[in-house]
Amino acid sequence: MSFAIEAAELDAADPLAAKRAEFDLDPAVTYLDGNSLGAPPRHVAERLDEVVREQWGRGLIRSWKQGWWDAPERIGDRIAPLVGTGPGRVVVCDSTSVNLFKALAAAIRLRPGRPEILVDAATFPTDGYMAAGLAGLSGHTVRRVAAGEMAAAASERTAVALINHVDYVTAELRDMGAITGALHRVGALALWDLCHSVGALPVELDAHDVDLAVGCTYKFLNGGPGSPAFLYVAGKWLDGFEQPLSGWAGHRDPFGMTETYEGKAGIGRARSGTPDILSLLALDAALDVWRDVSLVELRRKSLSLGDFFVRCLEELIPDVRILTPRGHGRGSQLSVAGSEKTMDELISRGVIGDFRPPAVLRFGLTPLYTRYVDVLRAANELAQLTESNEV
Amino acid sequence: MSFAIEAAELDAADPLAAKRAEFDLDPAVTYLDGNSLGAPPRHVAERLDEVVREQWGRGLIRSWKQGWWDAPERIGDRIAPLVGTGPGRVVVCDSTSVNLFKALAAAIRLRPGRPEILVDAATFPTDGYMAAGLAGLSGHTVRRVAAGEMAAAASERTAVALINHVDYVTAELRDMGAITGALHRVGALALWDLCHSVGALPVELDAHDVDLAVGCTYKFLNGGPGSPAFLYVAGKWLDGFEQPLSGWAGHRDPFGMTETYEGKAGIGRARSGTPDILSLLALDAALDVWRDVSLVELRRKSLSLGDFFVRCLEELIPDVRILTPRGHGRGSQLSVAGSEKTMDELISRGVIGDFRPPAVLRFGLTPLYTRYVDVLRAANELAQLTESNEV
Repeated sequence: MSFAIEAAELDAADPLAAKRAEFDLDPAVTYLDGNSLGAPPRHVAERLDEVVREQWGRGLIRSWKQGWWDAPERIGDRIAPLVGTGPGRVVVCDSTSVNLFKALAAAIRLRPGRPEILVDAATFPTDGYMAAGLAGLSGHTVRRVAAGEMAAAASERTAVALINHVDYVTAELRDMGAITGALHRVGALALWDLCHSVGALPVELDAHDVDLAVGCTYKFLNGGPGSPAFLYVAGKWLDGFEQPLSGWAGHRDPFGMTETYEGKAGIGRARSGTPDILSLLALDAALDVWRDVSLVELRRKSLSLGDFFVRCLEELIPDVRILTPRGHGRGSQLSVAGSEKTMDELISRGVIGDFRPPAVLRFGLTPLYTRYVDVLRAANELAQLTESNEV
Repeated sequence: MSFAIEAAELDAADPLAAKRAEFDLDPAVTYLDGNSLGAPPRHVAERLDEVVREQWGRGLIRSWKQGWWDAPERIGDRIAPLVGTGPGRVVVCDSTSVNLFKALAAAIRLRPGRPEILVDAATFPTDGYMAAGLAGLSGHTVRRVAAGEMAAAASERTAVALINHVDYVTAELRDMGAITGALHRVGALALWDLCHSVGALPVELDAHDVDLAVGCTYKFLNGGPGSPAFLYVAGKWLDGFEQPLSGWAGHRDPFGMTETYEGKAGIGRARSGTPDILSLLALDAALDVWRDVSLVELRRKSLSLGDFFVRCLEELIPDVRILTPRGHGRGSQLSVAGSEKTMDELISRGVIGDFRPPAVLRFGLTPLYTRYVDVLRAANELAQLTESNEV
């Protein structure tokens, strides 16, 4: 059977195929970069227009009491099932970087007398930069450790370890349960970065007893460029969660205008400044696409897309070097060795992935809108480029 | 001459009168809360729709290189003339609270060995909370001092003082030049909060040799609910500006994905996480209304509106208690003693101001769209309420 026929059959049998119609996709483009910026759900533009014209233009200041002020917690509750937790554990605000700072700062307070922060050696850079920024104030040491060695490296000196659930370069999926368990055995806290896993596969924070987590909403959650990030705090740490970006939005009585900061009960204390409503409500609209999605189904399709992509690549490009684990210990992205010029050429041909140094082509598989024909097209174009020695 | 005739004549002679047509205002409402949330400029909705459908929907990830990534600096440069500085000194990102944290943290690094941070005793609460949050990490003492006593209170122990340019309750305008000068005489840095002055009156940061400033964009700049805030760093401090929220967006080579943080040259090093594009570009559109506005003209109208409002209130309400300075040492807001019930009743009658505890009615005067008939209507409605003893 040719790959073209197989792709068509797989798409025809795909139980998630109908979701694609909910996205505003350019028919000329094969978009495989949803791991960097998700495509817009169709109704986001209209909803945002209503927010500007009605909620802002007509409701004006009154809208703060009609859903705006509590949007960070309310939208957090919508993300909760996507990360395996319940209401009151997730809040949406600020950037991933800023939320990481809060989570790390809260963690070192919860683990006094432990001088060390461990950071996934392969972390997305901003995570390490933020840890170093905090350490510069707190006096902690930041030590970079490969995720696979985190369990062995952690000790009674470790306050908290920051691990990326899915490696942003290779898409390797880390064992959340095993690493978290190992950290707990030495009394350290586990802080997971979910940027490349939320919306790409089932995440089970509560089941794995994770302490803290952060994640972004503009990749597989399609919240829009730079949309606000989220922060998860395990129920057992909510009361003790104290973070230095203690702005008025996290105050117990923000409009009381009192002199002294007192964090509100619950996850709201992780908030800082005034919430950014336009971006928050664009994300809120974007989350509607998840209403009827089974994460088990999502994961099944993600892996199946990846498996098919690997077969196409290996058959069509004899020397292809795939950097992502062949087995199912991966997220929803496939990485292939290649040059920036190759990716530029692919993009000019209408196949959009991205390039990461030193020499990695990344192709994101977004099960809600990526089809088997899309990955086949990407494989075909890459094969042609390789054959023609154009790159 | 009756107030009604006078108001009509003043509006007819107002050189800024035409600006009102650029805003999407509810004709049934008298909006005097632009000091809390500015009304939307008309073209913002359309521009945002284009950002979602075209830049995000069609440009996708490519749009990061076509204006998105540099938006914080570019929009900062557009705010620069409104705060009395030139290009490369202002960046737009994060919330005012988070930017305050960065500015304070940078200031204490620039002034090592000085154990004290002074905070305007009448500050908007979040400023004090953020200073306390930083002090909890750095070991500094935070001392609250009335703005008028800041000069006397500062000493060789003072690293930095945080002062609000316009008091959010009384609208009192502080003497930026005198206070900054006094701080400099003891070697302390001056950090000004411009939330209630930017877009309300000419601000002259460079002329007054201000070291650092922050401000919000959703009040008199009409950027939208919770729109991103800005941070100003004086030219002489740019090289030494180091802040602990050192995310990848402030990195010299963000896409180089290097292990170690190295702040970029210039104001961009004050950035932290991925910029929030939808909100940033809504603000960008909103700033268009300033193209042809003279800040001198703006200030003249602001004071004239306030003077007229004061005369109406004093004539129509014998016992009125105005909390804002009668002279011109004020921002663009008038505060009157009154209960929350009074403000609720005013709002139900279509006059929107706001209430601040313990007993303050705030009426914002936005010279770009507030008319003399608007403040007269507010005075009339308040007079009727007071007479009828309904409140």
